Amino acid sequence: MTSFDHTKYTPFQPVVIENRTWPDQEITKAPIWSSVDLRDGNQALVEPMTVEQKKQFFALLVDVGFKEIEVGFPAASQLDFDFVRWLIEENKVPDDVYIQVLTQARPELIARTYESLKGAKKAIVHVYNSTSKTQREQVFRLGKDGIKEIAVKGAECVKEHAAKHPETEWVFQYSPESFTGTETDFAVEVVNAVADVWQPTPDNKIIINLPATVEVATPNRFADQIEYFCRNVKQRDNMIISLHTHNDRGCGVAAAELGLMAGADRIEGTLLGNGERTGNMDVVTMAMNMYSQGVDPELVLSDMDRIISVVQACTLLQVHPRHPYAGELVFTAFSGSHQDAIKKCLANQTADKPWDVAYLPIDPTDVGRSYQEVIRVNSQSGKGGIAYTLEQEYGLALPRWLQVEFSPIVQKFAEIDGGVVDAQSMKKLFEDSFMTGSTPYQLGKYDLTKDDIDTVNAELIGSENVQISGNGNGALSAFSTALGEHFGMRIDIIQYQEHALTVGSDAQAIAYVQANIDGDRFNGVAIHNDIVSASIQAVLATVNQKIA
Amino acid sequence: MTSFDHTKYTPFQPVVIENRTWPDQEITKAPIWSSVDLRDGNQALVEPMTVEQKKQFFALLVDVGFKEIEVGFPAASQLDFDFVRWLIEENKVPDDVYIQVLTQARPELIARTYESLKGAKKAIVHVYNSTSKTQREQVFRLGKDGIKEIAVKGAECVKEHAAKHPETEWVFQYSPESFTGTETDFAVEVVNAVADVWQPTPDNKIIINLPATVEVATPNRFADQIEYFCRNVKQRDNMIISLHTHNDRGCGVAAAELGLMAGADRIEGTLLGNGERTGNMDVVTMAMNMYSQGVDPELVLSDMDRIISVVQACTLLQVHPRHPYAGELVFTAFSGSHQDAIKKCLANQTADKPWDVAYLPIDPTDVGRSYQEVIRVNSQSGKGGIAYTLEQEYGLALPRWLQVEFSPIVQKFAEIDGGVVDAQSMKKLFEDSFMTGSTPYQLGKYDLTKDDIDTVNAELIGSENVQISGNGNGALSAFSTALGEHFGMRIDIIQYQEHALTVGSDAQAIAYVQANIDGDRFNGVAIHNDIVSASIQAVLATVNQKIA
Repeated sequence: MTSFDHTKYTPFQPVVIENRTWPDQEITKAPIWSSVDLRDGNQALVEPMTVEQKKQFFALLVDVGFKEIEVGFPAASQLDFDFVRWLIEENKVPDDVYIQVLTQARPELIARTYESLKGAKKAIVHVYNSTSKTQREQVFRLGKDGIKEIAVKGAECVKEHAAKHPETEWVFQYSPESFTGTETDFAVEVVNAVADVWQPTPDNKIIINLPATVEVATPNRFADQIEYFCRNVKQRDNMIISLHTHNDRGCGVAAAELGLMAGADRIEGTLLGNGERTGNMDVVTMAMNMYSQGVDPELVLSDMDRIISVVQACTLLQVHPRHPYAGELVFTAFSGSHQDAIKKCLANQTADKPWDVAYLPIDPTDVGRSYQEVIRVNSQSGKGGIAYTLEQEYGLALPRWLQVEFSPIVQKFAEIDGGVVDAQSMKKLFEDSFMTGSTPYQLGKYDLTKDDIDTVNAELIGSENVQISGNGNGALSAFSTALGEHFGMRIDIIQYQEHALTVGSDAQAIAYVQANIDGDRFNGVAIHNDIVSASIQAVLATVNQKIA
Repeated sequence: MTSFDHTKYTPFQPVVIENRTWPDQEITKAPIWSSVDLRDGNQALVEPMTVEQKKQFFALLVDVGFKEIEVGFPAASQLDFDFVRWLIEENKVPDDVYIQVLTQARPELIARTYESLKGAKKAIVHVYNSTSKTQREQVFRLGKDGIKEIAVKGAECVKEHAAKHPETEWVFQYSPESFTGTETDFAVEVVNAVADVWQPTPDNKIIINLPATVEVATPNRFADQIEYFCRNVKQRDNMIISLHTHNDRGCGVAAAELGLMAGADRIEGTLLGNGERTGNMDVVTMAMNMYSQGVDPELVLSDMDRIISVVQACTLLQVHPRHPYAGELVFTAFSGSHQDAIKKCLANQTADKPWDVAYLPIDPTDVGRSYQEVIRVNSQSGKGGIAYTLEQEYGLALPRWLQVEFSPIVQKFAEIDGGVVDAQSMKKLFEDSFMTGSTPYQLGKYDLTKDDIDTVNAELIGSENVQISGNGNGALSAFSTALGEHFGMRIDIIQYQEHALTVGSDAQAIAYVQANIDGDRFNGVAIHNDIVSASIQAVLATVNQKIA
């Protein structure tokens, strides 16, 4: 159907380096982290974030502990411009946080960039131009000198504008874009020229960011490029060397880690790896990798559910079930031998001993999760299984995340009850555990208004009736807000699924919801002949479990 | 909410290696590939594959070009046992393919394993036991000698059984499970002892598989372990060194690549990376990485849509939109500067020149895909956008994959029509492109029977009426089969989504389907007040496009 011919590709030409030292290095301290979620991540979305979403995401980044946050490309996007102005004018940037903005090395764009930053306390102006052979020859049709001149002129322009606004604490950042496709000697030459313009000092460093705009080789070759660059660039001591890797070969985290060992000081990436094409380097994975080795990542990732919830809501991309440290399946064990080993190790684990549990590289509770043994009822039959039974007997198509949650409940019941769980008991267990949408409160009348924002007003019927109301981006969000405000809780919807139970004019739908309420996960399920009511009732079921 | 304390973890203790050579190696030829989808992958699923699914997956693996396929753990699972018997008795294994089965190093399990293999032409018996410090001390409570003895006894038992069945061409494989957590010297010692039992020769090698059962360090440390092992093990020339990496730190592919450079010959992994916890090493990514460097991967991955479709259907795990080489977003460009660069490079690209296009590491057509410029109508307003407009004006919540498909159609229209696309034109364009469920054929009466398998009988109304029928796992699958058989096409459903358009008793649902028909992708959309009819009509819409 297609020609599948490897001979049309040429191999990457590695930089020649002698006595490389990076393979003997260890990562023993956190880099300076810079989030590019609101710029590189946002630019790669089919539906870019709204201003509301950017505000929510920025608050998350601050809470996680980023001190450098790239907030947009204001000269290219009015929305980004407005967002930068809002941050500054509303005084939303903590005193110890630098906002960073990207601009191409073109005078009119640089001018507009500084306009957006007027009044900022601390700002990083990040200027770039493409330096790779492919871009020089095919896109810009310029020789090396022409490309270097773009960088130098850009650097001069950045410096001139900054001088006019001494009220802001400026940091300059330069990226030779497509660095991995650039001859490393030429990248050094361009950066030397930029540094000559900016004249940094050890007390007033510049940031030199070396992007794997496209990942083009095994990660050790990237590390070689970084070590070579650090050895050969002039004024190394006046620079913060930054890395910005992408994941085209599935090795974005590896490249950043080896690059850090090769001499870099700073890492740009995104939470859970959103970004162009295959994504940016995932900061969550890299930081948790350090954490699991006893290194302080200098980011607080304990509220993983909130991170997942905000990232999913803002990017509309689901976190993969096998995503390191975050996916719904990463703290599970299915096989008996794994479960047995984990059980024995957990029994030995005490608070005063270092963590040492087979098959669990970190303690799941560190990120607000729990270890889950997944059992399959009658798995030998091949047609047993909790999900299979509920589907065959009652038409319930449990989403995988709920199967994972339900499994330990069935297991516990089976242990008490002698090992056999019939379909009817299983259904009752399911209803008792999740279909809790009627006590202490059940859903009464409600109305829902959809405009720029959704508004819900609802009555809850209980020992006494309650009126609640709230706004949100969608009905579920509005209802969660209404519940949260009334009961004084923080409710984040983590998972949602709905399917028809029956077909025809009297069709019933079943809704499955997972919510994080004040740090704990609850699962709610509801059935209704109206799909909206089913969803809302499922959310109420989670809240009922919390307050019961 | 949780204690987030890195001090409870101790760092990995790397092996000390002098004058390592792997960082100067390049990958210039494909390893021996072994698929573990049907064993390791399958063991990590909430719903394990049925026999039907295993058959479908096995056929895919053979077609992709695997010559070694781990088909199960027959001593631990009756379903796996039955599947192995079916493969052998029905003569389903091509002559040049080895089936591989896993067993623990226990006599009764080894005996049962050989029972499953009776009559096989070529088979790899893969025996393992855990060797890590954690497992020795906490799980098995044995010293090093006790652990070594388990391995030796297992090896002897494997050899004895094989001798009784000379009609089969046997290959022996041993894994020191949890190799990465094992002192490398001890792993060498155990493997030496196993090799002493098996007495391999250069013409009759054994496979020694070194698993990163849990990924515990940066990938260069794994490569150090592999190089150290290869240097120090006796009888290296009589062994095929195999790697089996997992993705706990997001670096499973990197570890396999660097490990291959460090001296390994063979790689175990799964298609698109399904497997325990964070998954196994993704063979698709690693093979395509080689391909993109001009190295023949010795696997044919051109029909990526079929790979995605079978993997998703059998694992019930969606491929992430940013998955390297396979995700729906990996061949897109959103920013103007990227689009401009790609356009210029594509214009220069000719068949006689090596591929050299900015931001596109491979030619998307090699894997049956196309490059997509994603435009956002009125993106400057922040509320423009194709998806936004269709949703606000008509309540259509386009799934992202359909937005990506629709965008170039709108762009083309805009170019012809002078740049402005109003909501009404956009809707018409959408209907003309995708809502093609009535010409040349529309859906007439149908009936649907759900039993072990779904059966559909349907009438298609056209210039002449047609009766079709088919079976499948679900209504869509049955209907696709029916259509495929009638029209002589292969139809794989790649994407499916459905949502309510209105609420209440006269609710309407809209279904969105993407199908690969004989190698090309088509997108179909249909609206109906019955959710099943909407779905089926959407599939019909794709077929109508194909035959129109």
